[in-house]
Amino acid sequence: MTNPLPTGATIGILGGGQLGRMLSVAAARLGFKTHIFEPGSNPPAGHVADQVTTASYDDIPALTAFAETVDVITYEFENIPTQALDVLESLRPLRPNREALRVSQDRVIEKTFLRDLGLDTAPFATVDDRGTLESALDEIGAPAILKTRRFGYDGKGQARIMDRSDAATALADMKGSPAILEGFVNFTHEVSVIAARAVDGQVACYDPGENVHRDGILHTTTIPARLSPSRQMDAVLIAGKILNALDYVGVMGVELFVTPKSLVVNEIAPRVHNSGHWTQNGCTVDQFEQHIRAVAGWPLGDGRRYADVTMKNLIGDDIGTLPTLAADGSCALHMYGKSDAKPGRKMGHVNRITQAQPQKS
Amino acid sequence: MTNPLPTGATIGILGGGQLGRMLSVAAARLGFKTHIFEPGSNPPAGHVADQVTTASYDDIPALTAFAETVDVITYEFENIPTQALDVLESLRPLRPNREALRVSQDRVIEKTFLRDLGLDTAPFATVDDRGTLESALDEIGAPAILKTRRFGYDGKGQARIMDRSDAATALADMKGSPAILEGFVNFTHEVSVIAARAVDGQVACYDPGENVHRDGILHTTTIPARLSPSRQMDAVLIAGKILNALDYVGVMGVELFVTPKSLVVNEIAPRVHNSGHWTQNGCTVDQFEQHIRAVAGWPLGDGRRYADVTMKNLIGDDIGTLPTLAADGSCALHMYGKSDAKPGRKMGHVNRITQAQPQKS
Repeated sequence: MTNPLPTGATIGILGGGQLGRMLSVAAARLGFKTHIFEPGSNPPAGHVADQVTTASYDDIPALTAFAETVDVITYEFENIPTQALDVLESLRPLRPNREALRVSQDRVIEKTFLRDLGLDTAPFATVDDRGTLESALDEIGAPAILKTRRFGYDGKGQARIMDRSDAATALADMKGSPAILEGFVNFTHEVSVIAARAVDGQVACYDPGENVHRDGILHTTTIPARLSPSRQMDAVLIAGKILNALDYVGVMGVELFVTPKSLVVNEIAPRVHNSGHWTQNGCTVDQFEQHIRAVAGWPLGDGRRYADVTMKNLIGDDIGTLPTLAADGSCALHMYGKSDAKPGRKMGHVNRITQAQPQKS
Repeated sequence: MTNPLPTGATIGILGGGQLGRMLSVAAARLGFKTHIFEPGSNPPAGHVADQVTTASYDDIPALTAFAETVDVITYEFENIPTQALDVLESLRPLRPNREALRVSQDRVIEKTFLRDLGLDTAPFATVDDRGTLESALDEIGAPAILKTRRFGYDGKGQARIMDRSDAATALADMKGSPAILEGFVNFTHEVSVIAARAVDGQVACYDPGENVHRDGILHTTTIPARLSPSRQMDAVLIAGKILNALDYVGVMGVELFVTPKSLVVNEIAPRVHNSGHWTQNGCTVDQFEQHIRAVAGWPLGDGRRYADVTMKNLIGDDIGTLPTLAADGSCALHMYGKSDAKPGRKMGHVNRITQAQPQKS
């Protein structure tokens, strides 16, 4: 597919959670249909999709049938099994590409990739057992944080090592999974850049947002972030460098630690990102539509922003505040259609428009 | 249903066109599922709905089954057959109510209702045959416009009578349908108010937009409209009066002619309205979500506006301009997913954000 996907075409989305849901709505806004592939029943994205396939990622006939109904395939999460990707990629274009997935699925590969690009990362070392953990601690020191190399999200699969006596417990927390030890970064705050790259190499970034986490889960993103103009430009250049190096097509979330000396890349996510949800109420083209535009070979939106916004996640019991939020004229609600408000479960988010920004013409 | 509909509930929508489509997306944003009832195949709303029933409005078992899966019923168009409404209303709340439909389905009943409220309308008279047309022309004079009482939209079912020699041809154009003769109103421009009323009687209006029609179809709506502050208040009061008189729940479009002396009510539509599409990119809560909020018994958004917007319909071949519009950073696209770009067919619309408006706090 080198030409822009015509309106009316079908976009396949792997994963039926809230990101797939909001991607599906954005695709519809451009006239596309979507087909969701999701192992779980009653996926949030299914409420707003044209078709849903309920099957597991090792169901080759289902993957094949899915691919044959769509024109291009994208995804809402990075941990798609390799065998599924092999099947899908043989049938339809996959955007973003395999390389982006390979790099971002494994924290050691990701940090090595970033370091080789000349970007700052936390000091890190590979940990497979007690011996490699001890030598990693010799090299990096404590405090540090031990993480599984793969499948971690929202603070899961992580253990802090405040001093060496925590090492055994932390290693046990990894449950035998290959791990990475990361040194602590002495940062003042975290920002993220939501960046996009088109098929023709065009790159567009949204203004960086400032993230606050609670219990390992994103709590709020505030736009604008506390960042000097030159630091803001640094952040954009870092994101552009990463996207170019991966020949990336789509939206990526790049998390950065702000230190007195530099911006340290914490993590990249090859997909739309929770810290970019504010764009739904601050920009003409939001991150979901931006991703769909890239995947469909369309021109990107320019990322311009017409409002200051604070995004707040509604997690678990937070949905009890829904009546108050619904009555607040500055709050734009985005619910995910999940029936069961378990602790730690993202149920929705709210974008509060704090100040409109007159456009530069 | 007197309590607010809980997130996760299902809203039934009669009609699967673009209005149903955008209502469905708005419902999902609040965590609701939607079920579309539509006689035609492959309805635009079906691409973003949880369930679709394809059946005609005289299929009582299908209507019954549809109603039983939903918590409340609304609609995207006013010409729903009475027998279908009888079935549906016996099973679930219908919002807006029957009275709003009864009044707006027939131009004579509508104008009589408006006149009885003390509002200005064009002079009008009922026309059933040549004799009543002649006496109507005696009363109203020419130029005038002959319209079918029911089922007219986008300029269909209308014939101009510039002088009495046009009368026979105009009457023939009605094809035997009951008709209404309306006198010309000498207006400078047309505005419309998109107003909403909640279950508890709360009313919220968006700023009036200024409409330009081409070939009887809405071409553009521009916000703000040319309207003095006192006229703007008049417009809002007119809309509020209409909504209250009907004990209305939901969004209504009220079209007004601006004359040197007054605002003349042209037409009301008991649903979301094409001239309110600008709210998608100018307001925290757009007209679609506002309608869903009302129908679901939720508090309304306050209608505040954070941008100046011009909405332009993309009709038929206009979709040829899509690549240019997609490359324009100030344009927000809203495509309807229709495959066949027939002349006069609404394929999508574009909201151009012309200037952000700092919020009053």
